[in-house]
Amino acid sequence: MSLHITSANKGFGGWTKHYSHHSDLLNCDMRFAIYLPPQTAQGQKVPVIYYLSGLTCTDENFVQKAGAQRLAAELGVALVAPDTSPRGEDVADANAYDLGQGAGFYVNATEAPWNRHYQMYDYVLHELPKLVEETFPVTDQRSIFGHSMGGHGALVLVLRNPERYKSVSAFSPICNPVNCPWGEKAFSAYLGEDRKTWEAYDASLLMRGAKGGPPALVDQGEADDFLVEQLRPEALDAAAEASGYPLALRRHEGYDHSYYFISSFVNDHMRFHAEHLGH
Amino acid sequence: MSLHITSANKGFGGWTKHYSHHSDLLNCDMRFAIYLPPQTAQGQKVPVIYYLSGLTCTDENFVQKAGAQRLAAELGVALVAPDTSPRGEDVADANAYDLGQGAGFYVNATEAPWNRHYQMYDYVLHELPKLVEETFPVTDQRSIFGHSMGGHGALVLVLRNPERYKSVSAFSPICNPVNCPWGEKAFSAYLGEDRKTWEAYDASLLMRGAKGGPPALVDQGEADDFLVEQLRPEALDAAAEASGYPLALRRHEGYDHSYYFISSFVNDHMRFHAEHLGH
Repeated sequence: MSLHITSANKGFGGWTKHYSHHSDLLNCDMRFAIYLPPQTAQGQKVPVIYYLSGLTCTDENFVQKAGAQRLAAELGVALVAPDTSPRGEDVADANAYDLGQGAGFYVNATEAPWNRHYQMYDYVLHELPKLVEETFPVTDQRSIFGHSMGGHGALVLVLRNPERYKSVSAFSPICNPVNCPWGEKAFSAYLGEDRKTWEAYDASLLMRGAKGGPPALVDQGEADDFLVEQLRPEALDAAAEASGYPLALRRHEGYDHSYYFISSFVNDHMRFHAEHLGH
Repeated sequence: MSLHITSANKGFGGWTKHYSHHSDLLNCDMRFAIYLPPQTAQGQKVPVIYYLSGLTCTDENFVQKAGAQRLAAELGVALVAPDTSPRGEDVADANAYDLGQGAGFYVNATEAPWNRHYQMYDYVLHELPKLVEETFPVTDQRSIFGHSMGGHGALVLVLRNPERYKSVSAFSPICNPVNCPWGEKAFSAYLGEDRKTWEAYDASLLMRGAKGGPPALVDQGEADDFLVEQLRPEALDAAAEASGYPLALRRHEGYDHSYYFISSFVNDHMRFHAEHLGH
């Protein structure tokens, strides 16, 4: 699998780099960002924290705006941020910000025309970490976090594959997509009208059925425009309560859905993951 | 002078806000960003650190990418980031990234058609701080920093008005614009062909003639593509040496001209200014 570097910027003694590569699974070229902390230049292998972005984002938003590299350098962990969907002229798209390119929802699509490229669940779970672990000086110790649609993706990936991750966290995640407009629109298109198939991608339903799992941290702003209709953290909270899942859900007065919110609390997430990665 | 708020996002317990206002001096509407730290919500007045952006930037780049708000909140200082030029349909422009809108160079233009709007030197020196100090819970204690073209602007403003600022710093500043392509192009257009008039806007010439002044900190990346031809920090260094100006110039191996560089060292600048602001 050949990897092409498209940019490299030194920061905090390490390097933020963007790569493109052909994804056999997604049947198109994909981009991702990686931050390699200074420890890797000294021959050390470090664990990886994956970050999944939200609707309309790419591999750029997180590494430019969240300010996570400072602590990644201090703690000695790598960061990997994939794009939010397959992309390209021959990749199916919709004239919408919340479906198609930029809105992959981290599912494996089963319905045409989406199923030809939209396999983001398997991409983030298998293909991307395999590529990262074969290419860079990193261990196979992984944690994952994300924002909004990416928070949904991170929670679902960990709840379904607890053995693959040490910890999970999210900023303003879509907690109960089977019961919100974003989720209903995307799952109808990608998974079809049988709602039973949607349940495998609903963090609240999965957490309700979980028998323990990696610890989870969720931060939610109380002034988030999407809180009531789309995000529904109360569903996740109730699920954790019902199953005894180790979830810490924090609500923050005055904070919205933006990267100003993420940057304000990203250090807590970095420390949370580093602790569970034993780093 | 009426001020319109265009956005407000909570961060680190304070608020990043964008405003627009009509500038009598610039003869058009102008935008700026301000970060008000949490101390201001408790009735405290705080000093202000101004930040001047580089070519092609607006009032958005710094507050989104530099990561300075974390320490602004901790130290109890406000940040103000103006746009880089006058803007609008009736504002003169050039089909170039380094002249016209987005490229005001922080000078008072004397040549037509630029002189009708391009008075960024006086805007940053007088009109903007007057507006800020009349409107927000801030003191009249000011420091200033900037990047590239904005580093040039910050250095010139402080060297010509040492009584107005407590300290100055810059990332990758254009140090000797009378002797580089960016400066020659902009100064020819804005100030005319008499090179004598350019000298009032050249940090190296001003520093060479200074009898002391507010302390200056400059960070420069050694892998900066513009270092040799455009930035010329060696001219500033020689000027400080000649006049005994209190300049600390640091060079950093591997760092480039981007916000990844700025974010890596912004905390040092924030602490430097806070110390000289007595905060």
